[in-house]
Order: sequence, then C-alpha cells, then structure tokens
Amino acid sequence: MRLLVIGGVAAGMSFATRARRLNEEVEITVLERGSDISFANCGLPFHIGGEIESRDRLALHTPLSLKNMFNLDVRTQNNALQIDRSRKRVLVADRLSGDQEWLHYDRLMLAPGARPTVPLIPGAQDPAVFTLRNLEDMDRIIAAADPGKRVIVIGGGYIGLELVEQLHRRGLKVSLVQLHTHLLPQLDSQVVLPLQEVLVQQKIDVWYGNYFTSIERQKDELLGHLSTGEVLTADFMIFAIGVRPESELARDAGLVLAQTGHVVVNEFMQTSDPDIYAAGDVVQTRERRFAQPVAIALAGPASRQGRVAADHIFMGHLARPYPGSIGTSIVRFFDLVAAGTGWTEQALIESRRNYETVTVHEYHHSGFYPGAELISLKLIWDPDSGEVLGAQATGRAGVDKRIDILATAIIGKMTIDDLCHLELAYTPPHGIVRDVINIAGFAATNMRDNLVKVISDLDENPHAQLLDVRPKALAEKYPVEGAINIPLSSLRDNLEELDRNRYLTVFCQVGRTSYFATRILTQNGFKAVSFSGGVKGLRGLQGPPAKAGTKSA
Amino acid sequence: MRLLVIGGVAAGMSFATRARRLNEEVEITVLERGSDISFANCGLPFHIGGEIESRDRLALHTPLSLKNMFNLDVRTQNNALQIDRSRKRVLVADRLSGDQEWLHYDRLMLAPGARPTVPLIPGAQDPAVFTLRNLEDMDRIIAAADPGKRVIVIGGGYIGLELVEQLHRRGLKVSLVQLHTHLLPQLDSQVVLPLQEVLVQQKIDVWYGNYFTSIERQKDELLGHLSTGEVLTADFMIFAIGVRPESELARDAGLVLAQTGHVVVNEFMQTSDPDIYAAGDVVQTRERRFAQPVAIALAGPASRQGRVAADHIFMGHLARPYPGSIGTSIVRFFDLVAAGTGWTEQALIESRRNYETVTVHEYHHSGFYPGAELISLKLIWDPDSGEVLGAQATGRAGVDKRIDILATAIIGKMTIDDLCHLELAYTPPHGIVRDVINIAGFAATNMRDNLVKVISDLDENPHAQLLDVRPKALAEKYPVEGAINIPLSSLRDNLEELDRNRYLTVFCQVGRTSYFATRILTQNGFKAVSFSGGVKGLRGLQGPPAKAGTKSA
Repeated sequence: MRLLVIGGVAAGMSFATRARRLNEEVEITVLERGSDISFANCGLPFHIGGEIESRDRLALHTPLSLKNMFNLDVRTQNNALQIDRSRKRVLVADRLSGDQEWLHYDRLMLAPGARPTVPLIPGAQDPAVFTLRNLEDMDRIIAAADPGKRVIVIGGGYIGLELVEQLHRRGLKVSLVQLHTHLLPQLDSQVVLPLQEVLVQQKIDVWYGNYFTSIERQKDELLGHLSTGEVLTADFMIFAIGVRPESELARDAGLVLAQTGHVVVNEFMQTSDPDIYAAGDVVQTRERRFAQPVAIALAGPASRQGRVAADHIFMGHLARPYPGSIGTSIVRFFDLVAAGTGWTEQALIESRRNYETVTVHEYHHSGFYPGAELISLKLIWDPDSGEVLGAQATGRAGVDKRIDILATAIIGKMTIDDLCHLELAYTPPHGIVRDVINIAGFAATNMRDNLVKVISDLDENPHAQLLDVRPKALAEKYPVEGAINIPLSSLRDNLEELDRNRYLTVFCQVGRTSYFATRILTQNGFKAVSFSGGVKGLRGLQGPPAKAGTKSA
Repeated sequence: MRLLVIGGVAAGMSFATRARRLNEEVEITVLERGSDISFANCGLPFHIGGEIESRDRLALHTPLSLKNMFNLDVRTQNNALQIDRSRKRVLVADRLSGDQEWLHYDRLMLAPGARPTVPLIPGAQDPAVFTLRNLEDMDRIIAAADPGKRVIVIGGGYIGLELVEQLHRRGLKVSLVQLHTHLLPQLDSQVVLPLQEVLVQQKIDVWYGNYFTSIERQKDELLGHLSTGEVLTADFMIFAIGVRPESELARDAGLVLAQTGHVVVNEFMQTSDPDIYAAGDVVQTRERRFAQPVAIALAGPASRQGRVAADHIFMGHLARPYPGSIGTSIVRFFDLVAAGTGWTEQALIESRRNYETVTVHEYHHSGFYPGAELISLKLIWDPDSGEVLGAQATGRAGVDKRIDILATAIIGKMTIDDLCHLELAYTPPHGIVRDVINIAGFAATNMRDNLVKVISDLDENPHAQLLDVRPKALAEKYPVEGAINIPLSSLRDNLEELDRNRYLTVFCQVGRTSYFATRILTQNGFKAVSFSGGVKGLRGLQGPPAKAGTKSA
C-alpha cells in the first residue's frame, strides 16, 4: 500500500507521521514543492524582527530526519502537476532536474495549503512587492529590509500586524494600509481599539478603509495609489490581505469544491473521491456550533485534520471524526495581546442569530500583587440556552489563558451558569479569587435574571440622563460630556438630585460600579441601565476612533 | 428584615455584598472578631517576604468603605458568643469595651472560617510558636523574622511552602518539617519531585515523614524534638499543618456537623436550620464528580458559596444551587509552579475507583520561540466513560493555564477525545500548535485504542529488558542502569539486537520517542511497553528520592 502526500508542512506532515505510527508497512511519499519541509511557518515574522534569532530554529525537520524517525520518503522541490484518478496516480515534476514521473497512490492526501492573495492591480508584480508564506519569502523580505527603509504593509490581520511590529522592531519606517475600518476584522471593532492606539503610540501611520488601486515604480521607489486618492511612497511593500486555497489540482481532477474554492471534505477529511483526502488551509470544514461551512487557515486545525485522515485509513471503526472548528486565534502586538474564540457579535448579526453580550474587566492576577494587568473580556452567549457562543479579550497578560478556557467551554457546550462556578487555580501571583471569566458569568446571569439591563453603546438612548458614578477625582480627570457625577459612595444620599421621569444611562470606569449603582437606582424606582465595560474601553487605552478613508497617526 | 453575618472575609463578605445588590431595604450587620475586614488572606505570606511591599494593599476594605458602597453595618472586634435559635438572636461581645448584646436575625450567615491547627504537644503554646491566619499573625511573624534568624516551618502544604520561600527570601535560615513522605500531599508524589529538588538547590533542610513530639524552650532558643529522635534548634517556629473549622458556635446551637467538625449544608448552603446559612472554610460541600462529601478551605469556593446563599434568600426560584467543588489549587515555589484539579491518583486508589493515567511533557509555548519552558502534565481519566477525572502539572510557566483549562473540562464533563480537539489559541509567544493538553488527549486515546501500553514505573516489570531509545549523546550523559541504547533513528535497522522472547520496557526523555519506538516494536512482533513521561521526570529536575524519617538536604 502506498500513501502519497502533497504538501509537507502542518496537515501533510501530521498525516504522514501519524500514518507511520499506525502502520509500519505502508509506503509513504511526501511531495513538497518548496525547498523546506515541516518548517515553522508561524515563526517567520518573528525571525524578521530578530525575536527568533536563528533561522535554523524554523526548520523543524529535514528529509533525512524524517526518513530516520518515521521512514518517510520526502521529496522537496517536487511539484505535483496532475491527478489521474482513474489510474490512481499523480504526475510529479522535479523542479531542479525538470524530470517528470507518474507516482501511484492507494490513498492520496492533498495538503497543499493556501497562497497569499495579491490583488490584480498594476504594479503588484514588481519585485519589491512581497508576500510571506515560506522561508524563501522570509529571506527575500529580510534582504530588502535594511533599517531605515520605508515599507508599507497591506492588511491589518494577524500576519499583517506581526509584520508591522517586526519590521518596526528592525528599524524600518512602517506604514499600514487596511481595507477594513478597523484592525483584525476577525474580532469585533471595539475589542481592537487598544491595538489601534498602539499604532498611534508607536507613530506607525495607518490608512483605514483604504486599498491600493495601483502601484507604480519610480526609480528606486514604489508609489502606491490609494483608493482615496492619496499616494504613498515606499522602498518595498508586503501584501498580507489573506490567503486563497491552492485547490487547482483538486479542481482539475474534478473533485468537489466550495464556491470559495476550498476543497469540500466529509468529517473524516475525505474529498468527493473516497481515496483522496484533504486537510489544512485548502479545505472547508464546519464550525462546531451551527455546523456552518467554514475555512480556517490555522496550524492547529490543520495538524489535527491530518491526524483524523490517517486514523480513518488505518483505525477502522475506532477512527473518530473531525468535530469541526471554532476558530480560536490570537495575536501579540507590541505589549498587547488580542484573542478570540467562537462567534463574534458581528458574525452573529450577519447571520441573523440571537445573542447577548457583555464586556467586563478584571486584573489577570490579584490586584494587590505587583504587576497586575487589566483584561478586557467580551462574552457572547445564546439567550435561549445560555450556551457560550464566543469570547474576545485584550490585555497585556493572561489573555491567552482566558480565551483558551472559554474555547474549552464552547467545545464543552457550557453555559453562563457554568462560568460562574468555574473553579480556577488561585494564588496571588497566578490568578485571582474571582476570575474575569467568573465575573463575565455573573454579569451574564444577572442580565438573564433581569437584575440589570446593560447597553453596549453609551449613546444608545440619546434622551437619557448620563450618570457618572465614578469617584470624583476620576470623573474630573476623564470627564464625559453631558454626564453628571454622583459617586456610588454618595448615591443613596443624593437620589433626589435625579429626575425620576427620565431614563438614566449609568456608567463607571469598567462597568462594575455602574452595575452596583443601577441596582440601587432600579430598586428605588428609577429607570436605569448600566453601560457594559465602562469608559475604560473608550478612553485611556485607545486613540481617536478610526474613520474610513482617513489617516490616523 | 435583618441579615446577620458572622465572619467578614471571603464567604461572609461575598454574602453581604451580594445580598445588598439584591435588596436595598434589608438591614445587614457583619460581625468580625478580628480587627480587619475583608482582607487579602492569600496575600499574607507574600508581604512577609516583601514581594507585596505595602501592608496597606492587603486591607481591601474598611467598615466605612463598606458602609458607603454597600450600606453594610460592619463591626470589627465583635465576637459572636452564642446562637439562640428559638428567639433568632446572637449574643455578641465587643472585644474592646467588653459589652455584650443580643442581636436579632431573620437569616443568619455563619462564615467564621477555620483556624490553623496547632498540635497538642508540650511547648506548642510558646510565644515564639506562630501560625498565620490574619494580618495580626503576619505582623507578629514579621516582628520575629529578622534576617539571619533560624525558623522552622512545620507543614509542607501550600501555605507552608509559601512561608518557606518568603522567609528564605527575607534572609532567614529556614528548615521544614513535613509529616508526609512528600511535599503537597494534595498532589501525587511524583508530581512534586521537582519542588523537592528546589529545596535541595536552595539548601533548605527538610525532614520528611517527621513531626515534633515536643518543643522545649532553652533561653532564647526553641528545641524541637522530632519523632525520629533528632533535635532541631530555631529562634521561632510556624505551624502550617492544616486548619480546623470554627464550628463550635454551630455545634453549641445544635446544628448538624460532619464527623470532621464541618457544618453540613444543602446545595443552597442552608444548615439543618433553614434560617441559618453557612459558607466557606467552615462547611462541608460535595465534590462534583461523585458527590462525595468534601471540605475545601480555599477563597474561590468560599466567595461563590456566599453568593449562592444570598441568591437563595432573595431570588426565589431563580436561585441556582452550589454545584460542588473540584478542588483546583496551585502554588508557586521559587521559580516553579505546581497545580492540580479534580481527583489525584492517590485519592482514587484510596476510594477504590477505576482510573487511567498518563504523564506527558511539552513546551509552554513554541519550542522555536525563546524562553520555552517544559510543562509536565499528569492526566487522569475514567476508563469507562473517558471523562477527565483530574490533572496535575508542574513547570516554570503556563502551568496555571493548563490546570484551568482542565478544571473547565472536568466541570464540563469532557472526555479524552474532547482534549484531542481542544482548539487553543496559538501564536509562537503564546501557545504551541499542539498543546500539552492535546498531547495528553492523544496519549490517552492511544492507550484506550490499544495502540500502546504505558507504564508509570520504570521497574514495573523487573524481568523486562530496558530499552533506551534516546539519542546516543543523551543516553551517555544521563545513563540509566541496565538499559541498552538503540536510538529511535536506527531502531528499524537494529531490531535483531533485541530478544523477541523478552518483554521490553521502552523509555526516552519525555515519553514521546518511546511511544514512537513502541509502535515500531509491537508492529514487528515485540512485546513492548512505553514508560509514561520519560526519564525527565526521574532525573535532571528533581533531587534524590525522599525517604521517610531521613533528612534530605
């Protein structure tokens, strides 16, 4: 029996090594078009900035090491040209010698990944316009990236932001062009405000709601013509605007593709041809909650999909299906971390599903222990079942932990009541007696139980009286226009200052004191709502709100 | 309506403030015997060593701040002497004036906590013998703890270890006496080996399996007589050998107590008198998995129990029961962290329950990103349902995250299959493409699916051939007696060196390569088992094994 694997990074390598562990006899050949096998593609940006010093650390394996450990026949610089399904063979070209040969397969794994998108605009093929996918791309960028040079990164997603930071760290003058009106469209807009403030602090120019209509070479410079008419100048540019699945081979072989171009697979990663499997960035899978089709170009799902396919071939009835993805993701951007899991509010609105949401803040470890950093956590749940649908968080420490716990809760179909009673580890240097996740559970169940009505927009009711219940010093330092300040500590004694016939929008710094105040007010007959997350999310952490088509620097 | 609360720290304060948020009208009186209210008891050790510099940071509230924010009538230095259930009143003594008065209640909350145990041995009442429960205790210890002095800490649990580290940090000569044969009896013995090695590295003397039979004062010194006959000398001593519930008031009022002395409560924290609630260290609750009675003296459960009781009084049918505890706990000890959640192997053996276990190792973030630290994770599950029963971990970074994720998995009744497909956040500085929890899931399902047989003791089969599959350099640097070394990379070519009629115990550094090797061997007809967790757990990280009654330093 022979397994043929097209693509030797996350999904392909996971498939091949698991297959070998399950079966010593099978012949396994891995074809990789590039010159490197099983390299650490998520580490590439960090070598550009020097955070990962040695390039060697990014090369996790060689064909020889894979031969020795897993008895794999790995062929780099080998390009699969055509699949002949009727005769179960693949036409392969050696990129160095030019030789072609047909290789037979009993089972074929398609794990070619996805290629960075480059727009079809004049000038995009200029040699000083780059993308970043593999070690060779990284080497080209490093060769161009002398300190002091001007670079424009196009795309403010995860890879784009990592490139911005690393090139800035390397000493280049970096600018960012972002099609969307905010960074990281995978997250909700208010969640990424702190990251946008970092760009301001670091004096990195950014053009939101903008894209290049053409790129023009003028001697040693590139001129980028923005959709809003402005012209930006740079020594080189990098496109990081997303990826497209490398599904041409599958398409030409007549396999079923989704409209997006991704290869359609079943729960065991079989394509429409049961002898051909596919995994990783090239496939469409289902998201876990509503089984909606989704394509997630991340290393973790790819690696686990490869394993599922191998199990299906060799483990018979013991093989377990791929349960779907929830899209957990994270980015570190300078000293901040932003992460999310499950559904965003924006995606729920777009798919017209019911949801509730609240934003809460708490320190990542005990406030009385040095180094405590505030985490901002947005929780989203299903108001009918109480099940957690999604979560997003930002902060300087402990963000990954909270999102991982909530990813686990989503996979376990856990509810907002469960979050109240999550029993998390606590010692002052590592945790806090009521974790921000417990607090999110409390806030959500309080809303469910009608103890408080919460709003996400301070101006949701323009006729309401804005009531600031922060301590006087804070209210004076960060005033909010049109608000009256009655600190919580004196609220009970000053209720007569408020108009009982007028709606009250109550706010504080992080959303906790305003909840306390709202409880006092509603029990005294006032019509009061609490502003979720407090004005901390509006001021202090982030810069001026981004506007489409304008430069914010 | 009047609520009377006895005890103003975690459970009592959580009850009182939640009650106020639910009801503005009720009168709430909090009685606290000590001079401080709502203080950070978990922070006390850290102020002794100076990690938390300001003592003020440990006092979270004053009676005035609680009056202002929550309209609570807080009375410190007030001691509850007697409960008169028939007339629903409590006799209270003011410790400063000596005045006594009866206070009426409609509902009473007992949250008096637990007091540190001091053994009934001669000399234990010497003024230089301390315990640590509140700020006053802490002040007394600090007054005695001049740098250079000799102190003996008795008890190697969480608080004992924190005291050892902080007193060492303060410049004292610290010794430790531990009744158990290993540190932290809440965790399994092999899990705490790395912490025991830290004691050796820090030159802190420790006597395992030992206790004081008497303490004798000789001028300015204390002589502690060990059960094994040795005599230790110190300037002062601190007992940290556990706590006992302060349930005398409940007992005298005729409330039902458990044999352990804890107050018995129902799922809404009601005692045998429905108008009297109890919460925190004084009560017995249930552990979640088997509903076995358990008493857990930790701040998190206490805080949430107080909230449940308040909900039961004011929220009617919307009140939710306390779902039980799982006993998640953590300690930082010098640069190491040890944590656990759910059932330990030892506890499962003692209660004669079925379980399976495996130990795995992986870096806390990508190995190719600087600063990666190895985590050792022991996973325990139910072989029938696959449900996670417990987990323990040690390491220098990321331990809290893994234990919190697994605590969440336990509460969500998730299985080893779920762990394989946990979709955790991954960027090289924060996470790893296959997290140690995924790997534990892979290892556990491999065992379930009979792909590999794993043993936890290298010498489990004394007749077996020990096969070391580590690279030659590693095998030579850390040799294991009686083992032959055939590195994985050359195993397939050297199978004839092995005796097919003999059982093979295969090991490597962390348990991964030995699994690969075992797959090769069993598919070639050998009878091979893999050693769980590898010899990393035996050597390199920890010192010589502790022996009962011997000093290890």
